[in-house]
Parts: sequence; structure tokens; C-alpha cells
Amino acid sequence: MIENLISKSNAQLTKGFLKSSPVVLSSRLRLARNLNGFVFPSKASSADKSEILNKVEKSLSDKPNFKKGFFYKINTLSDLEKRLLVERHLISRELCEMNEGSGVFISSNQDFSVMINEEDHIRLQCIKNGFNLNALWKTVNRFDDLMEASLPYSFSKELGYLTACPTNLGTGLRASVMMHLPGLFISENIDKVIRASNQLGLAVRGLFGEGSEASGHIYQISNQQTLGETEGEILSRLGGVLKNIIEHELNARQNYFADKKVVLLDKISRALGILRNAHVMSSEEAMDHLSYMRLAVDLGFLADEYRALVDYLFIQTQPGHIQFPEGSISVELRDEKRAQKLRENFRKIPPLNFDN
Amino acid sequence: MIENLISKSNAQLTKGFLKSSPVVLSSRLRLARNLNGFVFPSKASSADKSEILNKVEKSLSDKPNFKKGFFYKINTLSDLEKRLLVERHLISRELCEMNEGSGVFISSNQDFSVMINEEDHIRLQCIKNGFNLNALWKTVNRFDDLMEASLPYSFSKELGYLTACPTNLGTGLRASVMMHLPGLFISENIDKVIRASNQLGLAVRGLFGEGSEASGHIYQISNQQTLGETEGEILSRLGGVLKNIIEHELNARQNYFADKKVVLLDKISRALGILRNAHVMSSEEAMDHLSYMRLAVDLGFLADEYRALVDYLFIQTQPGHIQFPEGSISVELRDEKRAQKLRENFRKIPPLNFDN
Repeated sequence: MIENLISKSNAQLTKGFLKSSPVVLSSRLRLARNLNGFVFPSKASSADKSEILNKVEKSLSDKPNFKKGFFYKINTLSDLEKRLLVERHLISRELCEMNEGSGVFISSNQDFSVMINEEDHIRLQCIKNGFNLNALWKTVNRFDDLMEASLPYSFSKELGYLTACPTNLGTGLRASVMMHLPGLFISENIDKVIRASNQLGLAVRGLFGEGSEASGHIYQISNQQTLGETEGEILSRLGGVLKNIIEHELNARQNYFADKKVVLLDKISRALGILRNAHVMSSEEAMDHLSYMRLAVDLGFLADEYRALVDYLFIQTQPGHIQFPEGSISVELRDEKRAQKLRENFRKIPPLNFDN
Repeated sequence: MIENLISKSNAQLTKGFLKSSPVVLSSRLRLARNLNGFVFPSKASSADKSEILNKVEKSLSDKPNFKKGFFYKINTLSDLEKRLLVERHLISRELCEMNEGSGVFISSNQDFSVMINEEDHIRLQCIKNGFNLNALWKTVNRFDDLMEASLPYSFSKELGYLTACPTNLGTGLRASVMMHLPGLFISENIDKVIRASNQLGLAVRGLFGEGSEASGHIYQISNQQTLGETEGEILSRLGGVLKNIIEHELNARQNYFADKKVVLLDKISRALGILRNAHVMSSEEAMDHLSYMRLAVDLGFLADEYRALVDYLFIQTQPGHIQFPEGSISVELRDEKRAQKLRENFRKIPPLNFDN
């Protein structure tokens, strides 16, 4: 059912940008919105939810911007299809658990999606490679306005946008940035940074949100507060902290390189050796090796063009993405297919250039 | 002091044989002998030991066979030099602990050595690549006769050759074979084989004898009984069991290959990837990867000529061998030099051929 989406070659998400910044993999903004006159999804009847789903679908299909997008009712998707959309960060793991009346719209280039009847009636999100919260905010704000024009949002002058969970009240804005922090990890400074971020009101999570592991040295950092500040203030405060973390990460890399150059070259070079040679590999292991390959690009050991390859493989070696073209295969076979894909991709790349 | 020995290019030990059997790395026979009219070394005075040392040296230097050999008094060797001789299995760790009056003679091609005043006055050993206990016995027996012609051995008609420890009494013969058993190891059958060998009166030890680890899946298997059987009987009984173990090892490889081909290819291919790429490596880790390379040769994934390279590196990557040309270097630097040596050697070899 989602073949068309998967085969789309212009998906920004899986392409990566040649000039994307080191450290930041991608940025994402999401807005929580609810419709006037309906109870929140957890209390709504199937009939209510279906009505909401129809309203939102109609509102989206009316807009020229969204004409070429994809619309799926969640209960029509297989587990594998849902897994694949989660791996692309297009839907949440929570939405996968929903039944009739929940769904998702995904724009044709996959940088905009709308979840319907997850925790809230509507969750809009924009996702882009690299670090540019302001540009992202302009886009998501424009899409929000477009939708609001035909959908009556629940809004209170005092509290702002009303949401199912009070933690989203006000702006309903969650900004999260996917950061690649191998320097802080190997220099054992990551825990300090996580604690400091928490104290500044930010949440730090693994690749797939709450409770997930930070495989590949990838951390999702997001604002926790949505109320009492404007969207601009939230984003500028978050942006400030993230710039700080980027600086810490780059320093950590530089210091580690200065102090333990050989150990670092060893880690990076071994990762490439294993990617080029393994015949069985779990997705967690793949993430960790890919992390070192991205670091190799950042440090100039590999040409810039390979950053896009690494970012592409970060997503393409996830379990759902490996499994999708194969159909029903065992975990063992999936680990073989993954290793094969990585071997084929990394055997083509030139030797690491450690002389820079 | 031992530079001449190290630089000898015709040392059989570090060359390996192209046609050497899979499974058996090398075989060694040693004879414990003592001289009439002297107490055993542990009770002997320094003067007595020095007299014995001189007698043995003179006896050896008289023989045309031994003219080009090396003779070292143990207290003139540095720790590093002793370590290097241990790594080549030319002297025991016990001899390294001895002081004045102990020494070693090593034949020019390093396949014959005589330790003087270790546990016994004299310990002769012959060591050869591959598995041929009978040929080895002929050689060591001939050398023993040569020495006996000018040195009065302690011998009792009832007990045979008298030795410091009763476990060596009679023939004084210890035959030990260095076996490479990765198949039994990865198929988790090695403990069973060790237990069975023990029950048949054989000792199973790691690479450097009693109490040492079996790195590189290498096990030293030897007879424990020296009394009540002729040398021929001891060797034929040991040989029989070892042939059995070889068969078990080859079966284990074949079965593992049949059942878990991809897992095996993964282990072998990763080992090569790491050997080709690592910048830091301990000697234990090196041994394990080298073990998979030897297995790769045995299974036909690498040409037969590389077995000699692997056997050469098994010895040449030992700590003393890495350190020797460098002089006094830190453990860290030693691990770097080792990784460098392995990289240089393995980057030259062709890709594994898994299509056979």
C-alpha cells in the first residue's frame, strides 16, 4: 500500500544534503491541534474520530500544496508498513497502536506530515535535514494557517491551543533536533550534557523518542515547555542551547583527536573494515558503525559527498526498511540482508584519508 | 645479544610450511636428562651448576651438528630477550627465572634447543611445523645419543632416566602438539574434547603451557605419562588420540559450515576487515583474528600460501617480537605497532574467495 511513498526518489529525508552541518542530522517541528466541538481522541467514539478524519482529509485534499501527498487510514496499514513510516519519523509509535478513525497524511516529498487522532486530533510536523529552526517554523506555520482556514481549532485566549495533555498546551509546539554526538559520547561527556540540557528544560531522548536507545550516538533534543512563551521565544531559546551543544560536540571531537588520535582512527577505521566485510549485522551495530562513518566525513577522512550516503543508510538499514522489499523474512535473514547492503555500499568508497 | 638468532632467516619456526596440515601448527618433543654425580638443579650450588653448564656447552660445541648454534647463559639475557625466546618456544618461562649456571643452546635453524639447569640438568627439545612425531623422535633421539656419548646420564635399569620430578621419570619424554581448534571452539565442543583428552591421560593447555590462555583457539596437547611405556608406545598412543581430535576438528568445521555458513563467513570476513583496518590491537585480539585467517586458508577462502604468513604472524605479533626492534616502548605503542604490522600484511592479500 505504501509502495508509492517508498519508491519516491525525491524524498528529502533519505537523501541527505551534501552541505548539511556536522552534528545536526535533522530538525523537526510539530504542532498539536484539536478541533472545536469534539472530545479528545482518547475519549472520542469511533464515529467521532472517523468524522474528524474525514474533515481533515477533505481540508488537506482541497489545498493545492498537498494534492500529490499520501493519505493512509492507520488500520489499513500492515505492521511492517507502519514500522517503515516510524523509521522515517513520519508517524509516531503511538499512532501505530490506534485503530479505526486514525490516520496520517504525508506530503509528496515527505517533509510534511499530519497525524490524525493520535493523542490530539491533529499533529502537524515538518522535518528537514540540517539545523534551521526558523525556516522550518515559517513552513509549518504556513501549513498550520492553511489548515486552520478550514478547520475550527480549539483555542483559548488564556491558554492558547488546547491539547489532550497539559504538557502541550499553549503553542502546542514541540521542536526536536536529531543530533549526532559521537565526540561527547567517546569522551564520556554525554551524561553531563544530558543533565545540563534537562536542567535547561530540554528533553534528551534516543532515536525513536521516549525510552528508545541512543544508537549511532544519535540524540533527539527537544523543548519541554510549550506554554508562557511565544513560538519564536521557544525556538530561539532551544536554538541557543543547541548551538552550545554543537560547540561542545565539536570541541570534544577536536580534543579527543588531539589527545587520542590513534584511538579515534582505530575506531573509525575498524568501523569501515566491519561495514565492508560483515555478513551478519544487527541494526544497532550498523548504527554505531555508520556513526563513525559520519564522523569520518566531518573530520575530512572521507569526502563530503559520503555524508549523504551515511544518512541514507541510517534510515535504509532500519529493520522495516530492510524487510519491506523482502516481504516476510526471519530476523537472521534481515541481519544478512543488512550486512549485504552495507558491504555493497562501503566496498565502493575510497580508503580513508588520514593525512589531512 | 640475541640479534643474530632473531635475524636468521632460515628459522623453520617462523616460516611455516606451505604444505603443513590444517589443525596441527607444530609438534615438539623434549627429553629430560640429568648428569651422574650431580644433585638436581634445585639443590645444586652455583659452582655445581656452572660446572654442568660448562660440560654441556663443551659437549655441544664438539659436535659438528651444533657448530653454528647459539649459546646463552640465562643471566646474560635481558627480560625482553628471554621473552622473545619464550615466544618462540625455545625456552620455558621457568628457565627465565633461573640465575647463574643456567643457560640454553639453540641450533642454528632453531628446531633444536637444549635448556641447561632448568628443572633438570638437561632438557633437549626438537620442534617442527606440522604433525610428524616419528620423524621428530628420530631427530631428538639421535641428538640425545650424540650428547650421551660425552655426558654421563643418570640412568637406572629399573626406573629409566632419573629426573627431578617423578612425573618425568622413565623416558623423560614429553611430546606436545600445538593444535588449532577453531571448529571445536565455535561449535562449543572444545570442553568435551578437553575432558576426553584428560581422561586418556593427556594434558591440554594454552599456547604457553600450564595456566596460559588458549588465545587464537590454539591448544597444546601432550602426554602426561613418561614411565612404563617405551617412547614408541607413548608417541603412538598420543598420535592416535591426536588423529582423533583432528578428525573431530575437521568434522566440527564441516558441520558448522553446513549449518551456519553465513555466521562462519561473517566471523572470518570480519576478522580480515579488522586486521586490515585496526590501528590499535592487543596480542590476544590479534591471535583470535589470525586464527580465523588460518581457518580461511584451511577452508580454501585464501590461497594455501597464506598459511605460512599467518603462522609467521602468530609469532611475530607476540609482545616481545613487536617490542624487540623498537627497544623500550609503552604497551600502547606496542599495540599500535602490532596493528600497523598486521595492516601492512593483510592489505596486500586478495579478497576472500567464498565461492569455492
